[in-house]
Amino acid sequence: MSMLSFLLGEKKKSASVAKERLQIILARERVGGESGKPDYLPALQKELMAVISKYVDINPNDIKVQLERQENLEVLEVKIELPDATRG
Amino acid sequence: MSMLSFLLGEKKKSASVAKERLQIILARERVGGESGKPDYLPALQKELMAVISKYVDINPNDIKVQLERQENLEVLEVKIELPDATRG
Repeated sequence: MSMLSFLLGEKKKSASVAKERLQIILARERVGGESGKPDYLPALQKELMAVISKYVDINPNDIKVQLERQENLEVLEVKIELPDATRG
Repeated sequence: MSMLSFLLGEKKKSASVAKERLQIILARERVGGESGKPDYLPALQKELMAVISKYVDINPNDIKVQLERQENLEVLEVKIELPDATRG
């Protein structure tokens, strides 16, 4: 199943009335166990939000952030509901 | 099925020997048909790569980009294989 079909399936379940939705997923997989490197996903997420807010008006209340870890995989999911038109 | 379990399933299929993998997915869903707004995903993707390269050394040959569209959903998938240690 491709990422697109997975997200299409997710879409059908959600009942929100947003005009537009943006979903950002950051998945980091460390092969060969813990590499001891600092976890940069949270910092990366903040910067990505700053970049995204140049393109769409983001209301902090419309953002849902979820961080999941399993095995050597770390998935950071950011869901943004956009009630109104985007900028530009 | 959560995004994490979907990606765990994907992981098992891939046979790459990268030390670390980073996957960025941007999914944009426009509700109520074509809103006529410009498509900002490609520009957003370039900027996101610039932010990410502050955290990990990215070799352009190690990046795979895939853009898929279906119904009112647009999914931009960026896969980065990181052969070596990340910065910082």
